[in-house]
Amino acid sequence: MANQIKKFNSKERTTIECIQSPDEMQNHSKTLRAAGETVALVPTMGYFHEGHLSLMHKGRAQCSRVAVSIFVNPTQFGPNEDFKTYPRDLTRDLNLAREAGVDIVFTPRAEDMYPAGFQTEISLQRLPKHLCGLSRPTHFAGVATVVTKLLNIVQPHCAIFGRKDYQQLTVIRQMVSDLNMDVTIIDAPTVREADGLAMSSRNTGLSAGQRHSALCLYQALLHARNMASGGVSDSGEIIAAAREIITAAPETEIDYIAVVDPQTLDDMSQLVGPARMALAVQVGGVRLIDNMLLTP
Amino acid sequence: MANQIKKFNSKERTTIECIQSPDEMQNHSKTLRAAGETVALVPTMGYFHEGHLSLMHKGRAQCSRVAVSIFVNPTQFGPNEDFKTYPRDLTRDLNLAREAGVDIVFTPRAEDMYPAGFQTEISLQRLPKHLCGLSRPTHFAGVATVVTKLLNIVQPHCAIFGRKDYQQLTVIRQMVSDLNMDVTIIDAPTVREADGLAMSSRNTGLSAGQRHSALCLYQALLHARNMASGGVSDSGEIIAAAREIITAAPETEIDYIAVVDPQTLDDMSQLVGPARMALAVQVGGVRLIDNMLLTP
Repeated sequence: MANQIKKFNSKERTTIECIQSPDEMQNHSKTLRAAGETVALVPTMGYFHEGHLSLMHKGRAQCSRVAVSIFVNPTQFGPNEDFKTYPRDLTRDLNLAREAGVDIVFTPRAEDMYPAGFQTEISLQRLPKHLCGLSRPTHFAGVATVVTKLLNIVQPHCAIFGRKDYQQLTVIRQMVSDLNMDVTIIDAPTVREADGLAMSSRNTGLSAGQRHSALCLYQALLHARNMASGGVSDSGEIIAAAREIITAAPETEIDYIAVVDPQTLDDMSQLVGPARMALAVQVGGVRLIDNMLLTP
Repeated sequence: MANQIKKFNSKERTTIECIQSPDEMQNHSKTLRAAGETVALVPTMGYFHEGHLSLMHKGRAQCSRVAVSIFVNPTQFGPNEDFKTYPRDLTRDLNLAREAGVDIVFTPRAEDMYPAGFQTEISLQRLPKHLCGLSRPTHFAGVATVVTKLLNIVQPHCAIFGRKDYQQLTVIRQMVSDLNMDVTIIDAPTVREADGLAMSSRNTGLSAGQRHSALCLYQALLHARNMASGGVSDSGEIIAAAREIITAAPETEIDYIAVVDPQTLDDMSQLVGPARMALAVQVGGVRLIDNMLLTP
């Protein structure tokens, strides 16, 4: 197994360490912990935007050391999904991480994460049978398994996940609780472009026209939030209005629009309490997701 | 959640702690680790015999503290199996553990291990599709999940498993490796009665006649070992001889007899190297397993 540590100079921090080997990463983290340091982990697939940087800053505020993992995890992509075309730029990412005050960047290789003979999977019974899980049936088992591996390798005190991937956040919280993992899961708000589009590495795949069209996700969510706070309690009515906004935008194809219980992700037909509205829309060939809290 | 710690006096150790709450157990173990202690875990379903005690002694030799968990895990029993009748005697177990020099006995309640909403499962793709997994299709997912929970709760440096449950041992080793769990898995040899019957809590369910009949498992394995070391390399021939020995014993019903690769558990038709012979036999209504190394 490669045992490769590169050191990069930085103005902000003395060094940033780039570790490729899982064993090396685990030993490094154990050394830090034994020395009394606290470790925050930000698991990512790289191609950083301000959303990622906000997670790193949150880690910085929580712990004395921040580790960021960059791993485009093959097992969470379906056979017809964008694993091969998912954007990657490690050099740029390392610079951005260094500027954000990150101490360690962990960049494991797929062959070290999934060596010959690998055969273990973590799956959840109910949470993945909603929202994105309906069109991506193997996605959350891939996420749960790789996050468990990353947590066991990096052994952080806390791990930070963005609220944009809301279903992922609920899956990870449930898994951590169910398996008694000794880590605090911290969520962070969705970071948006000036016009409201949720930041995503996949946004770079949008043409100028599609980028304009993609704003409909945010507009639909805002409209829904206003309807809910204005007294509309029928989810069907709220979803229909959102559907109309998205359908009116060019090059959109709705995967789902749902109003769900924030913990169980079960559909809520009536807004009897706070709910999470979530949606997935293909814009051009790019699949975008977003979500928002609806408060009656 | 109950936070119940009982202290028992002992001649051998000052105290033995009995902890019921998973949170309490996790905190206790973290305190021990922070104080520089090393922790060995012996996961059990209780009703101790000398096999269990040998695992505790092995833990004692490895680490400064030994924790034993006693949990008859409902999720590893099939619907028609012996969960309800599995023998239990906590008072006796606590005394035996104390005499064996155990420091902590962890006795979680099923409702704390599997609270409302629990939905996470760890499964392996290939190893469970052999031997016991064929007639107990949900068993090893139950084992893998509960062992992960116990490891995350107790956070031991090492965990000790008996070689009698050979398939369980291979499943746990594979899972620990696949998920990068930071624990050393140590195996310990099968402890046998004077006549060779592998010790098992289930042996107490045998009548006197069945107890005599049960010896056929060991006799079949011994015969197979002799055939292998004597130059017989055809597994079919070895299995047929074992089958004859077992069938000749009264009240026996064979679940399986197999000669397998020690790592993958794939059938080995020819003894081209060391192999593991494993068998499961119902004696009366009691399902017994045993295994042995065959060296050509």
